[in-house]
Amino acid sequence: MTDKNSIDKARLENFSDGVIAILITILVMAFKIPEDFLIRDYSIFELLEFLIPQLIPYAVSFLVIAVHLFNHHILFNKMKAVDATFIWLNLFFLFSLSLIVYPTALLGQVHNQETAAMLLVGAYFFKAVTFRLLHHYAIFKSGLYKTDRTKKELRNDTIISWLKGPLVEVIAFFLIFINFKLALGLIFVVTLTYIFPPKKL
Amino acid sequence: MTDKNSIDKARLENFSDGVIAILITILVMAFKIPEDFLIRDYSIFELLEFLIPQLIPYAVSFLVIAVHLFNHHILFNKMKAVDATFIWLNLFFLFSLSLIVYPTALLGQVHNQETAAMLLVGAYFFKAVTFRLLHHYAIFKSGLYKTDRTKKELRNDTIISWLKGPLVEVIAFFLIFINFKLALGLIFVVTLTYIFPPKKL
Amino acid sequence: MTDKNSIDKARLENFSDGVIAILITILVMAFKIPEDFLIRDYSIFELLEFLIPQLIPYAVSFLVIAVHLFNHHILFNKMKAVDATFIWLNLFFLFSLSLIVYPTALLGQVHNQETAAMLLVGAYFFKAVTFRLLHHYAIFKSGLYKTDRTKKELRNDTIISWLKGPLVEVIAFFLIFINFKLALGLIFVVTLTYIFPPKKL
Amino acid sequence: MTDKNSIDKARLENFSDGVIAILITILVMAFKIPEDFLIRDYSIFELLEFLIPQLIPYAVSFLVIAVHLFNHHILFNKMKAVDATFIWLNLFFLFSLSLIVYPTALLGQVHNQETAAMLLVGAYFFKAVTFRLLHHYAIFKSGLYKTDRTKKELRNDTIISWLKGPLVEVIAFFLIFINFKLALGLIFVVTLTYIFPPKKL
Repeated sequence: MTDKNSIDKARLENFSDGVIAILITILVMAFKIPEDFLIRDYSIFELLEFLIPQLIPYAVSFLVIAVHLFNHHILFNKMKAVDATFIWLNLFFLFSLSLIVYPTALLGQVHNQETAAMLLVGAYFFKAVTFRLLHHYAIFKSGLYKTDRTKKELRNDTIISWLKGPLVEVIAFFLIFINFKLALGLIFVVTLTYIFPPKKL
Repeated sequence: MTDKNSIDKARLENFSDGVIAILITILVMAFKIPEDFLIRDYSIFELLEFLIPQLIPYAVSFLVIAVHLFNHHILFNKMKAVDATFIWLNLFFLFSLSLIVYPTALLGQVHNQETAAMLLVGAYFFKAVTFRLLHHYAIFKSGLYKTDRTKKELRNDTIISWLKGPLVEVIAFFLIFINFKLALGLIFVVTLTYIFPPKKL
Repeated sequence: MTDKNSIDKARLENFSDGVIAILITILVMAFKIPEDFLIRDYSIFELLEFLIPQLIPYAVSFLVIAVHLFNHHILFNKMKAVDATFIWLNLFFLFSLSLIVYPTALLGQVHNQETAAMLLVGAYFFKAVTFRLLHHYAIFKSGLYKTDRTKKELRNDTIISWLKGPLVEVIAFFLIFINFKLALGLIFVVTLTYIFPPKKL
Repeated sequence: MTDKNSIDKARLENFSDGVIAILITILVMAFKIPEDFLIRDYSIFELLEFLIPQLIPYAVSFLVIAVHLFNHHILFNKMKAVDATFIWLNLFFLFSLSLIVYPTALLGQVHNQETAAMLLVGAYFFKAVTFRLLHHYAIFKSGLYKTDRTKKELRNDTIISWLKGPLVEVIAFFLIFINFKLALGLIFVVTLTYIFPPKKL
């Protein structure tokens, strides 16, 4: 029982990738068939009008999960090995990531959208925090993190990550009271900055 | 943050394969149980009559996604490495591929079939365009594409691919106004040509 | 386009394993919640009474798909390489395997069970035939099959496989007219023989 | 047919990991959208009130399945090879693991919760027994288990595992008659002990 941490890095990474691949794909099952689709005529425009409010949260959540695939990989690349605490924080992160699926579907229902958006942003926030916890342990506690950076640089990086991660979700949460689309837009744009990293930083 | 592209080719390919495997399998959940199945007798012939209109879009979408598994692999085989833009165009392609699942299910509802077929062909078209964008970047911009062919040959290949891909979908879209089965038939036949490639070309 | 067959054996096997893993797991989503579960009291015995008719087709289909995981692997082990025809026959087999999911769920509906059983056995039969076609091509046409056995022995093996595969499904189909449980029982028992192979054969 | 056991350890482990990854992710589809979500206003607090009873069994089942990922891996690490019986006991274990998905969803329905909890704990118990059977065969019958421990130590370990596994489920089952939350709490806490193994044991 003491070699619980004998699971190797490659296997944990494969498992995590598998879960992320399934989560990103399962999102697509949120799309509903219109309730009156079998009893009245639908033009392609009416259908699109019905679908676009479902497509928007889908696209945002797809992007958010996709970004974590890469950020997750970067973290794993820097680990010399994984220990029991890292494994369980990683699982806790996957658990929080899985909670994104439901509110994404709920927001597509086009009713109670502020409430649904709060739940979605709350799920994003929870996921951002667990991801930070995983990083915090990996970088400062595990002793398994390979890096050329000084402690001070690492701490500065960490602060930026807390700002770009959990803090943005908190701001987004309050933006919902103005307009939930503003909140999603903010998250989308901030997430996009991970895609095209600044050349010099 | 600057080593966002440190994800290696093998891992990206595995992840893509995983997503494609899940998408092709999730398609099967489109099949509905007849609403009156619990309250009246069904013969096997009535059941088949109910199922065949669902089976046709299922088979077409299964074939379309399957072909992309192989075309996707051929592209990856020719890449020396992958960079950040390639990774994100690839994700954009997977996103567009995921949009095939919903209209496939919708077309099996046997109502508003022209509208549903338009959405399905639209999803095929979107996927064909993102796949072309991925190829275009890989071949002409990335500098990571291994090939013995001349620039001119590559350009000719590209034109053929645009014709067999997005253009066929456009033609199919207009065929829907005559008969949506004609449209699906065209896509099915063109997709089949990828399976049995001409010996000499 | 002429190197469509450049997909290597390992990748095809991984993809096939992925699809089989998803199919076997998706089966579990067939279980329905009783319609009156929210409006009346259920004892654990009433619940089990409701679930067992769903559990039986689930267990049979789980076993049938699981056996194919291993038979599929044995075939792949004997292939020196894979060519385009093999790849596509393999996909055709996976397509037929995916068709098992729906009738398994249908049979659990406890209405029209003879009809649902016919569809399920039909799906098993279709899958058995595509698996035979894949083997037939691999063994006798591809020139890629490694074996120490003589042509005559291979032919005898093939006959036995046709008998244990498609023929059993045909017999099971006719047994449905007597009792569909008899049909499922026959398939279950024959499938079990793959698990505990006779020591001397 | 006699080399049915030719499937290698790595492939079986990959397949098992795949099935576990899908099961743990499919759990998330249990979350239901409130029936009156489209017809009345929902505050975030009312929504959370609706969701938390679904979140509790989800979290417990997520943890239980996650723990088996690691325990399963530890077992595989100690196997020199796998034989036919091991393969099939492993499949039987995956089958039992898959049966957790349905009662987890059922318990979230907030009706007949004692009955649903009985089914869930029953599924946990079944899974615990199949896992013990797999271990028992591996350790004492297969001759493929690598260990430095004496027979006597192994037997003592086994007894502890039976107590922490199936016996806890039996106790949990009877706790349901007092309060089903007590039963889930017990299972949750015992499962947590696998996460933080005692330093000296």
